[in-house]
Order: sequence, then structure tokens, then C-alpha cells
Amino acid sequence: MFNHAELRERVCEANRELVRAGLVTLTFGNASGVDFAAGVLAIKPSGVAYDELQPDAIVVVDLETGELVAGEGRPSSDTPTHAVLYRCFDGVGGIVHTHSRAATAWAQARREIPCFGTTHADHFRGPVPVTRPLAPAEIRGDYEERTGDVIVETFERQGLDPLETPAVLVASHGPFAWGPDVAQAVENAIALELVAELALHTLALKVEAPVLDDDLRERHFSRKHGPAAYYGQPQ
Amino acid sequence: MFNHAELRERVCEANRELVRAGLVTLTFGNASGVDFAAGVLAIKPSGVAYDELQPDAIVVVDLETGELVAGEGRPSSDTPTHAVLYRCFDGVGGIVHTHSRAATAWAQARREIPCFGTTHADHFRGPVPVTRPLAPAEIRGDYEERTGDVIVETFERQGLDPLETPAVLVASHGPFAWGPDVAQAVENAIALELVAELALHTLALKVEAPVLDDDLRERHFSRKHGPAAYYGQPQ
Amino acid sequence: MFNHAELRERVCEANRELVRAGLVTLTFGNASGVDFAAGVLAIKPSGVAYDELQPDAIVVVDLETGELVAGEGRPSSDTPTHAVLYRCFDGVGGIVHTHSRAATAWAQARREIPCFGTTHADHFRGPVPVTRPLAPAEIRGDYEERTGDVIVETFERQGLDPLETPAVLVASHGPFAWGPDVAQAVENAIALELVAELALHTLALKVEAPVLDDDLRERHFSRKHGPAAYYGQPQ
Amino acid sequence: MFNHAELRERVCEANRELVRAGLVTLTFGNASGVDFAAGVLAIKPSGVAYDELQPDAIVVVDLETGELVAGEGRPSSDTPTHAVLYRCFDGVGGIVHTHSRAATAWAQARREIPCFGTTHADHFRGPVPVTRPLAPAEIRGDYEERTGDVIVETFERQGLDPLETPAVLVASHGPFAWGPDVAQAVENAIALELVAELALHTLALKVEAPVLDDDLRERHFSRKHGPAAYYGQPQ
Repeated sequence: MFNHAELRERVCEANRELVRAGLVTLTFGNASGVDFAAGVLAIKPSGVAYDELQPDAIVVVDLETGELVAGEGRPSSDTPTHAVLYRCFDGVGGIVHTHSRAATAWAQARREIPCFGTTHADHFRGPVPVTRPLAPAEIRGDYEERTGDVIVETFERQGLDPLETPAVLVASHGPFAWGPDVAQAVENAIALELVAELALHTLALKVEAPVLDDDLRERHFSRKHGPAAYYGQPQ
Repeated sequence: MFNHAELRERVCEANRELVRAGLVTLTFGNASGVDFAAGVLAIKPSGVAYDELQPDAIVVVDLETGELVAGEGRPSSDTPTHAVLYRCFDGVGGIVHTHSRAATAWAQARREIPCFGTTHADHFRGPVPVTRPLAPAEIRGDYEERTGDVIVETFERQGLDPLETPAVLVASHGPFAWGPDVAQAVENAIALELVAELALHTLALKVEAPVLDDDLRERHFSRKHGPAAYYGQPQ
Repeated sequence: MFNHAELRERVCEANRELVRAGLVTLTFGNASGVDFAAGVLAIKPSGVAYDELQPDAIVVVDLETGELVAGEGRPSSDTPTHAVLYRCFDGVGGIVHTHSRAATAWAQARREIPCFGTTHADHFRGPVPVTRPLAPAEIRGDYEERTGDVIVETFERQGLDPLETPAVLVASHGPFAWGPDVAQAVENAIALELVAELALHTLALKVEAPVLDDDLRERHFSRKHGPAAYYGQPQ
Repeated sequence: MFNHAELRERVCEANRELVRAGLVTLTFGNASGVDFAAGVLAIKPSGVAYDELQPDAIVVVDLETGELVAGEGRPSSDTPTHAVLYRCFDGVGGIVHTHSRAATAWAQARREIPCFGTTHADHFRGPVPVTRPLAPAEIRGDYEERTGDVIVETFERQGLDPLETPAVLVASHGPFAWGPDVAQAVENAIALELVAELALHTLALKVEAPVLDDDLRERHFSRKHGPAAYYGQPQ
């Protein structure tokens, strides 16, 4: 039988880490993790204060139907967005959504974050893309599900690999970040906020700041990711 | 008989929460709560350090006359502003005034905060308005009461519902936020500072940043507020 | 006999408060207090880490000659600047020098801080002035004493009362703040950093931001200071 | 025999200090120390979380060959950069690399940090230089060693003394700082981030901000450094 306890514990810990990293204000933000074998995702309950959050408050829902599998209370209202991404993005096991300061400013300005330096290239193989604004009909219907769709559409149109560019800015809304598991999704959300802030300051210093040369971008990305990686300890 | 203790405790806790949230420097700021049945408001004493603040230091004054009902010492010098808002804004049960960094910058620039994203729309149904500057005669007379009047005038002229736009910027001064009770007033003050900071960064990235489409603004506001709300746990 | 212990304790506590308020980095900054009857000032020793600072490490020097009266080690290298201000500014009993972020940026830009709002007017009756740059001969000679002289010159030329404008920006250097005692000097240094940051953000929002009307500036200053003050608790 | 324990303890403590000073996010950053007599440098292991860091996790490698001398696991991937600097910069005993916010923004904008004030001159005798971008062939080869080479080249071309200008910005990457030992390297990294932030705000206030006059720059540098220094306590 599927062990909810372990997944809920990891998801709870990830949500708490978002607070420690300064990425959330009030109850804005949520982290989820998935178990494909069990066909479920575990996510923060909606509108619950972070300092009260315990593993058994984490809600487990069916990945396809969204129905409650374990836990009490309503899952995060953004749950349908998470579910779309799990269903469409191969290899994604954890997702984080925040309204972190710098990344949200880029989302509100509807600008992608250019790759201005190696800090960015260490985590994202190119610019962090921004979605198109949702159309009125998309907003009035299953809005949160359409938000997931427009993220997927953005990656398909630009031919991006979600595991190489593990974040997106939803126009006029804010960032989503992800990774192979929820802990790595949190790490990518933290890295995203840092590169968003660095890019904001970089443009303040030079309106036409140069983006990273392809060679340097590839070197940094590949020294941390893929078969030739030599950053970190051997696994 | 009216239980002062409970109201003072909630107002004291709200004032302390302003400090924890980073909204106040020195003794700049105050939170109040009202009891309409008893005809009183409870507010922080003037110029008292936050770390000394205990519930029995909270001052209780008559809502109409401003006379001291309980507690020792002078109430916050902004008390007449709070009293005007309680008398004129139906449903407001708590008020917060701070000199928080980003919101005060908008007040000093005498600019309303445009609704640039869903973080804003989650709390405020449209732009956060800015008052006109007070006239010399208003400043020389009952200045703090006139500050309340100009806030009410701003909402009347723009046809705003105070519970849908629970904050204002007083020109060249700073923000006031409110809510059905003092805890929600604090939450709105925290949300206001966040959206003020996001808007500041957004304009740095795009001078002509687009405001949120009406559909998206309404969707986000109404998923948190009103009869069709589905954010948070059922009450 | 003069009680060094009490003065040193207050000066030590003031220096520690600068750290808690986030105004100092490394060992940049110093607070001093004076005892005119005893003809001495007490100040932080030069280059000593704040977390090691104890009252008996505070150095006491003669106000006229600068000679060591009590304590071991070298006084802050800025001591001659403090001494000039104590000798020339009537009523000043405490002085603080920091390299706090926003105020130092204004000093480096060689711009006075305009009075953009009531937060400013609550502490400073008008703009916070900036000195002229020191001449080469002044820099090569008794540099720290000349720094004090140029502050005094600035106040004399502009006809300012040091107790109504209890701070200055030394061009290309940083802020000095003062008050009737060292605790109030610290409070003014904290207020200065806040108004410097607010003014920085205000200009980012509106290049030609309006300064406060005279009436409002006077109202706010005089509700906190002077015979008609009604802010804070009666003394 | 060489005492690894003492060097590893100092290097471990320096790495932890980077976190306390707010200079590192996630695992971005590393501090190293050298022992020339033993021909080794000690450095943070690659990709290890700071809160797990203990002295015996610090890796010791041969200064010439890069071979592991003590400790387990892979040294920081930036180790070859550190080694080049130790071999070429006389008197440098400790090196720090971070992706601190303001300094990295200057590196990404490929701008040197001008000497705008005395805070800067207290630590750096002139502008903090920025390297040229690395050429594609340099990036594809021994990239980290070439990063060291381009730093050395920058200092040689500009005729700079590494102990008088103990920091550099690597174009599109981030800052390196150093000093006679690892503790002073950390101090210079902290000072660099402060002056980078001050300079960012200074330019926001005045696009053509004036750099410090030579006299004042020399006065401040020499009151802290060299034979006539009078800042700090006599050694």
C-alpha cells in the first residue's frame, strides 16, 4: 500500500523551507510532490498559515480527478495547475508556486528573465520564459487548469525541456518552479528568486546588459547537470 | 458589561505583529480595534516602544468624544483619524497605520498603486487610491480628524467600497489599511506593503507596465472574497 | 567625582543598538556621549568588533585635548569630528556615525535629502543637508577635525539649528546624527536611514516628487517637538 | 608535520561566516585558505550544504597538482581558480568567492565599481576592476584555471597590487575577494558587497555621480593600511 506519510512529510518540509528562504508572505505559496505509482499528488491545504503546518495537514488528491484521497480540508486553489504540469512534464516530481518579490515583478512586467550570468546558467539552460496572458474565456472557465495549460503551451512553442528550464513566469501572476522531487523544486524556486533579483539590479546598472555567451552558458549548465557534471559530490 | 480585556489583547497582539512583519521602525505605526456596541475603540498609546507593549497599556477611548475610557496615558496621536474611519466605513472593525517602506514611497510620490498582478487582486479589487494633499486650513485645524475626512472623501469620490479596497495612501504621509477586525487589518497592511514593493520593481522593469485585465482581477478577487470564494478552508 | 561607568554603559548600549537596527556592517560606525561637567566624551574604541563590546572597553577622552582619560586602546579615528560637534553645537549630548546603506548613498551622490513626507518631518524640520567636499589641504591636515568643521560650516551657512535638523551627510563619506543624549542620537540615525530609503524609492517612482508643504512639515515637526507637542506620553 | 586541523577549522569558520553575513544562497560560494610551507590549500567541498559543514569536511589539496591531500569528496569546482591566485598573487593567504547580490549585478553588467566614497576607499585603493569576458576556447578548456588567469591578467594590465585592491569582478560571473588570511578575505568580501550596494544606490540618485578625489581616497586607504595607519588598535 502507498505510504502517504513519507510523501506528506517531504511536502510539509518543503512548504516550511519556502518560509525560511523568505519566498512567501502570509499564505501566498504552495509546494507539492507527486507519486505517479499511486496516482496522487500531495499539496498544502488552501489558506492555512505556515506556522501551523504539520505533515498530517497536507492534503493528498487524485492526480487525474482531483478528488480527495487523504487529509481534511480543501487543497490549495492552485492544485489543478500543479496536476496539469505533473501530467504533461515528464520527470517532474515536485512543484513550487510562490509570489516571491523579484520573480513576481518580472511576471508582472511580462518579461522573460534573460540569462545574464553563470548563477542563472547553473540552474536554467536559457532565459526563464514568461507565458502569454490568459484570454477572458480561459479566466472565466477552469482558470487554474488553463494556467497549467498555458505553461505547457509556452514550453512546447519555445521547444523547451522542462527539466533544463525548471521554472516559468505566469504573466501578471508569478513564478512556478519544479524539479525531479519537491526538495529540488524548492531549490530551483530559491535560485529563480536570486537570478530574478540579480537581473533586476543588472538592468539598473546597464539597460542593454549583455546576455551570457552560449559557450559559458553551456559550460556552467553542464558542469552541474548531465553525464559530464563535475559540480557537487559523486552520487 | 463590556470586556475591555479581550479587545485590548487582540489590539496589543496586532501591534506586535506589525513589528514581526517588518512594517514598523521605531514607534511609527499603530493598530486599533473597535467595539461598536460599547461605543469604544482600543489603540496603541502614543510614542510607546513596541517591546514594552502589554495589553493593559492599550488605551480605550470613546468613539464619538475621544475621551479616555480605560487605560493610562495618551492614545496614539492618529486616534482621531481611526475614529473617523470607524464612524464612516461600514463593516470596518480594525485599522492599521504604518510608515512601511514601499507603501510610504508611493504615498510620498502621490501615486495610486496600479493593480499589476494577481497578488494585488487577491486583496484589493482595483488600484489602491491616494488622497489629495490636505489644504493649509485643514492642516492647521483638527489635522488628524481632517486626515480621516480626506480618506472618506477619496472613497466617496471614486465610488469605492472600503471592504473591497481595504487600504489607502495618504498623500505625503503613508498607508492606512483596515478590515472586518484588527487581525485582518494587519493582514491587509502586510499585503499592501508586498504589492507596493512588487509594483515598484515592476515599474523598474517596464515603465509602462500593463495593469491586470478586468477578468483576471475579478477572478482573483472573487476566488478569495464573497459568496463564490473557494480559496482557504470553508468557514 | 565623575562616574565614568554610567556614561560608558549608555554609550556601549547605543553602539550595540546600531547593530541591532542594521545600521552597521563590520566595524563601520560609532556612537559617543558627552559629559560637559566633566569635560569628557566616551566613544567606541577604533576597529573593535561590536559583539565583543563591553562598557569597560568604551574609551573616555578629554573633550578639548583628546587625551585619554579612561579605558585602554585607541578611540575611534572619528573622535575629533565628534569633539568639534560637541564644542560647537549647543545642546548636543550624543552623536552617531554610520555607513548605513541609503543615507550613505545620498552622501555619495552629494545630494541633500529633500523632505518628501511626514516621516521625515517628524524628525527633521527640513532637508537633511550635505556638506561641501573637503579641500585637499583639509584632507591632508587634521582631516577628522576638518570634517567636524565642515559640518558646522554647513549649519552656519544654511542657518540651521542642529537640534531641529539633527543629522548631516558628509559629502562622499556618510551620515552623522545627534541628539540631546546618545539614545536619541541613535533614534535619529535610525529615522535618517528610513527617510533616506523612503526618499530613494520616492524618486524612483517620481523624478520630480513634490516636497512637503510648509504647513504639513511644521505641523508634524511641532506635534513631536517643542512646547505644543502632543505626540508621545507627557514627560 | 603540517597541522591540517587548524587550517581546516579556520576555513570552515570562514565559510560559515559567509552565510551569517548573508553573502551566500544555497551552496553558491566558497572560502579557502593556503599553507605555502605545506604546499596545500584547504577549501569547501563542492555542493555541500553550509549547515552540515564541519572542519573535517573541508578538503585539502596540493597547490600545484590539485591532488587530494586530506579529506573526502570533491573540492569546490572553483578550486583551480583559487590555486592560480595563490600561485600568482604574493601575500594572499585566503580567498572567497560568492554570488552576493549587488557585487554579482556589477559583474553581470560588466562594469567596474567606481570608488564613490570613503567606505570604498577604506578597503580598496581604487575601482574594483572587472575582467574581460573569457574567450570560447578558454571556456571549453580548463575553464576554472582560465578564470584565474583572466583575473591575474586584469591586475597585470591595470598595474594593480592585489593587496591594495583585494577583490575583482569576473565578467558575467561574480566576485572574488582575498586577503592575507581567510578571515580577512571574508571581511573584504563583506566590504565589497556593501560598497557594491552603496554604488548601485548612488547611481540611482545621480547617474554621473562623482568619484572620490584622490586625496580623500588616499587618506582613507592609508589611515587603515600601511605604516601610517591609525585606524584600529595597535598590533
